[in-house]
Amino acid sequence: MNILIIYAHPEPKSFNGALKDLAVLELTALGHQVKVSDLYAMNFKALADRNDFQLLENENFLKYALEQKHAAKTNLFSPDIKEEQEKLLWADFVIFQFPLWWYSVPAILKGWFDRVFASGFVYSRDNRYDTGRLKGRKAMLSTTTGSPIQAYTPFGMDGDIHEKILYHINHGMLYFAGLEPVEPFIAWTPSHNEEDRKRYLEEYKTRLHNLSKIPSIPYHPTSHYDEHHQLKMEYR
Amino acid sequence: MNILIIYAHPEPKSFNGALKDLAVLELTALGHQVKVSDLYAMNFKALADRNDFQLLENENFLKYALEQKHAAKTNLFSPDIKEEQEKLLWADFVIFQFPLWWYSVPAILKGWFDRVFASGFVYSRDNRYDTGRLKGRKAMLSTTTGSPIQAYTPFGMDGDIHEKILYHINHGMLYFAGLEPVEPFIAWTPSHNEEDRKRYLEEYKTRLHNLSKIPSIPYHPTSHYDEHHQLKMEYR
Repeated sequence: MNILIIYAHPEPKSFNGALKDLAVLELTALGHQVKVSDLYAMNFKALADRNDFQLLENENFLKYALEQKHAAKTNLFSPDIKEEQEKLLWADFVIFQFPLWWYSVPAILKGWFDRVFASGFVYSRDNRYDTGRLKGRKAMLSTTTGSPIQAYTPFGMDGDIHEKILYHINHGMLYFAGLEPVEPFIAWTPSHNEEDRKRYLEEYKTRLHNLSKIPSIPYHPTSHYDEHHQLKMEYR
Repeated sequence: MNILIIYAHPEPKSFNGALKDLAVLELTALGHQVKVSDLYAMNFKALADRNDFQLLENENFLKYALEQKHAAKTNLFSPDIKEEQEKLLWADFVIFQFPLWWYSVPAILKGWFDRVFASGFVYSRDNRYDTGRLKGRKAMLSTTTGSPIQAYTPFGMDGDIHEKILYHINHGMLYFAGLEPVEPFIAWTPSHNEEDRKRYLEEYKTRLHNLSKIPSIPYHPTSHYDEHHQLKMEYR
């Protein structure tokens, strides 16, 4: 497979860095093609603004999503955006490696979604979720937390990790774009001790060796919703 | 009241810009003190990195949250972070004005949370949620969407706006820091027509005149959770 790793951490010696390094090593050894976007090392621009387009359709009023649509048609995204989009089209599987900061992705990775997941490129009015333009590719979040697993259970203090925390990423970003999100890999508070880190690296290695067998998150296809965007009765 | 508006949109003439301008106008006329952080105009740095600290505790290994704690003790955050923190301490009420991009805040605003909501400043081990350091202040999200309200209902295609989408912001960011989040103001697909925009501006004006009466979101205080971070049986 062609595997793309989007990696967002400011410290190469961090545990996130170790997970990324392990993935490159193991996946390459298994015969996969691997590319890494190391967003901090690339000094990836996080801010969505008019400089993201080589030519603006409307110089006087920046409607970001409309300019994205225009740039997708004319192939006039800024070079750093194009490069990431080409990597996405190349990939069969995308891994996102990041620390969970404020119950979401770090700003540099949010900026990657804001800019690279462009209207007209990953979605359009008729292409979203199971018909999103990145259809046919899988994706997995690999993240680290600052709170223990208990805090993220359905009655946990921080909120259910799948239903309340990662939903806006797995469903809202990955699935929306047509990617098929598989169950995330989560290292709970790995900063607390060396034993845990070793165990997580072992677990992650096992997972990397079984990438194609990770269960997908069972989101509904768009056909399960009616014309008012409501889940049809038979699927509730 | 002292009211701080954190505003994140790249186009001053946008509807988000109009909502921000209206808030400044109305709140000032009502006799409030108003400050605005216009993140795009400030070219606010979104990336959390080692330059956020005037002196590093550990030059060789950047642990961002530990450096935040150190900077909070020594008052050695970078000047742009300090300035935002001082505005927060000054404020009684904070309004966040932003477009909902990828079911979350734009990267520039996420960077504001990553950098300004620092460990040792808004939270510590014993100060989070109802005991967070920004306690005594209220906060409100004011946002605009690209999908209609139906898509955000409990069985809607995009996911329940309160429980699945805004939860990571209202609960995870605002409430975690001790702020008391009130019900958000949401303009659904305001880009679609002028009539809707006019109506939303009227509705927002009414709301701005009644800021202190907006119901708070009823999140549980930390005392409702047991030592395993689980909501106690009697509160379920």
